[in-house]
Amino acid sequence: MAAGAAIPVPSTQPALSGVRFSVTYQVEGDPFTAERRAADLCLEQTVELPEDMVPTGSIRDGIVGRIEAIEGGALTSQVIVSYAAETVGTELTQLLNVAFGNSSIKPGLRVLNIDLPDAILRSFRGPRFGIAGLRDLLGAPARPLLCTALKPMGLSAVDLATLAYRFALGGMDVIKDDHGLADQPFAPFEERVARCAEAVRLANRETGGASLYVPNVTAAFPLLRERAGRARAVGAGGLLLAPALTGLDAVRTLADDDAIGLPLLVHPAFGGAWTTSPTCGMDHGVYYGLLMRLAGADGTIFPSFGGRFAFTRDECRGIARFATRAIGHLRAILPVPGGGIGAATLADAIAAYGRDVMLLVGGGLLRLSPDIAAGCARLRAMVDDSVREGPCTSPG
Amino acid sequence: MAAGAAIPVPSTQPALSGVRFSVTYQVEGDPFTAERRAADLCLEQTVELPEDMVPTGSIRDGIVGRIEAIEGGALTSQVIVSYAAETVGTELTQLLNVAFGNSSIKPGLRVLNIDLPDAILRSFRGPRFGIAGLRDLLGAPARPLLCTALKPMGLSAVDLATLAYRFALGGMDVIKDDHGLADQPFAPFEERVARCAEAVRLANRETGGASLYVPNVTAAFPLLRERAGRARAVGAGGLLLAPALTGLDAVRTLADDDAIGLPLLVHPAFGGAWTTSPTCGMDHGVYYGLLMRLAGADGTIFPSFGGRFAFTRDECRGIARFATRAIGHLRAILPVPGGGIGAATLADAIAAYGRDVMLLVGGGLLRLSPDIAAGCARLRAMVDDSVREGPCTSPG
Repeated sequence: MAAGAAIPVPSTQPALSGVRFSVTYQVEGDPFTAERRAADLCLEQTVELPEDMVPTGSIRDGIVGRIEAIEGGALTSQVIVSYAAETVGTELTQLLNVAFGNSSIKPGLRVLNIDLPDAILRSFRGPRFGIAGLRDLLGAPARPLLCTALKPMGLSAVDLATLAYRFALGGMDVIKDDHGLADQPFAPFEERVARCAEAVRLANRETGGASLYVPNVTAAFPLLRERAGRARAVGAGGLLLAPALTGLDAVRTLADDDAIGLPLLVHPAFGGAWTTSPTCGMDHGVYYGLLMRLAGADGTIFPSFGGRFAFTRDECRGIARFATRAIGHLRAILPVPGGGIGAATLADAIAAYGRDVMLLVGGGLLRLSPDIAAGCARLRAMVDDSVREGPCTSPG
Repeated sequence: MAAGAAIPVPSTQPALSGVRFSVTYQVEGDPFTAERRAADLCLEQTVELPEDMVPTGSIRDGIVGRIEAIEGGALTSQVIVSYAAETVGTELTQLLNVAFGNSSIKPGLRVLNIDLPDAILRSFRGPRFGIAGLRDLLGAPARPLLCTALKPMGLSAVDLATLAYRFALGGMDVIKDDHGLADQPFAPFEERVARCAEAVRLANRETGGASLYVPNVTAAFPLLRERAGRARAVGAGGLLLAPALTGLDAVRTLADDDAIGLPLLVHPAFGGAWTTSPTCGMDHGVYYGLLMRLAGADGTIFPSFGGRFAFTRDECRGIARFATRAIGHLRAILPVPGGGIGAATLADAIAAYGRDVMLLVGGGLLRLSPDIAAGCARLRAMVDDSVREGPCTSPG
């Protein structure tokens, strides 16, 4: 067949030529099984053809994945497969697709790490604020930070704003919407965000503080973008979204948007399947730490150990490690553990995560005192005490 | 604190008042455990507060979920919890959030069904074409349909277009991009889509057929929307996207977009975690069938039984059931099983799925004959034979 004259000619991307990135997979099975599965990953994640049908030459040599290492145990092995950067281009969706697209559906495979060279990382702007930027905004250069949530669902916008005001009076750094607040009739988005932003502004004026109100903008992308713009216009201090509901790339799109330019917190709602099975999905650190940071979140919310979710201390520290360790130019981001953190567990949480953490205290805060602002102030005092008491371990 | 005068007043949504929807969860544990976990779901998915902290009145009575049924086995139970429609409003993201947001992170919970009354379903336009609409476009009122994929990644746009031409000459109904084709330097999006659409158009002119070329538009939403528009402009016959990468609501947004108006196929890449664990995530039918249909996909691709993925025949038939059974005004959509379907398994696949299916034949097609168009024609003949041989079972 003849090609029409109007068809565009490709632009080349020479910067990616020869560049590779690698993915570490946990594989159920002995080293022989691991070798077979590694070979399968090389094909499934790229050409998606049986080995004997792969064209020789540049496709077989350049496109098919390469086994870089296999370290076997009796029942579980680790394999490292590298892929050509050209298979990804510069898109986050396609990076995830090559790393774990079809193979995510096969049982007994779990992603333990994604190692990206600078040539690929450069395609991602990354977090706009990160830990340092958020600390600047909050005027809190070194101590653990505190976050709480406006809830329950069902309160009116006026009631939520009253709560926000009291939380800010008590010195909570970040006051976020509960992730269940969307655009329901009892507290419609526009009214809620306008009232809560105003409430926190008033409280900051009284205290001289710099608390941030962070509304939930989770929605279909066009609506999410519109809500982000409205939130910014009425003075929100950041935005909350749940990437498992919006798509991870909605985080990146919002983080890169200079017209928004607000800190982003990501919430784990609906994303549980990624980590609930120890043999499938992804390592907690990769999903909650690395991917959220790569997408441009400034803080990543996850269920802390010992609460009503089943994450272990090690899994949580793993998230903090991926959130904070050196990864190219990507700013370190805040681990934001929540779910059961309160007065009784605060010191232990700081011991586990170190000072570069934002502790999300929900119901536990309301138990501290019938006077919410007094409860917040007590929590702030506990944080200050815990820091004075001595050096914290870091998750690194 | 005082509220400013400029704050908008809520619009009420009386149509949802008193309406409830229900979610069936599989719960690991005996009936006593099931009862405790059901009570926990009622709180976790709505107010996210411990029971003793829930405000009495409209929140406790109207917002907190309600246990509707518990059917216990010794090790696994099923619980049905209903939620007020007001907690969701009209947004798909928030529907999924209330159905399984935080609880997705808790082990031992799996969604088996989401039962939506018409008052909620009316918020969703649903599939634009569905099975009947796609059959009209393809001029194939009754037989099983055939789909194939342009691959491998690494071929040039010219080579892919040559393949597309031959597939269409051979009578394949839908010729889709492999889900790994994005915007890579070896076959950039614009050039690839223009060439492949033209190739299929030329073949249709020669054969009098109505094959559709369906390019992959998976990307960050703004780019996805742009690609969808370009694909439409150059004559693509449908669009492919992977909701686990784009967010499920990208499907709905695209399906609802009258300026696009093309059939949508959804691909399972990166979504495996939803179904790989038998105790977590979602039932195969709910994820691949119900959710994709609710979002507006016209066909849902999934790994068929017996191939290189591990889905069982029952799980696959469950997907077909959710894709096709009566659900309010939502058009029935095509199950599109793939992964290992070829000459040897075609008749069995039709026996399992019935005639309302689109069989995705990839590598298996290339094995049929060195002449691709002849291989396609042979496959079409086999489909016609299988239908003549007698009535097919339906998955219902």
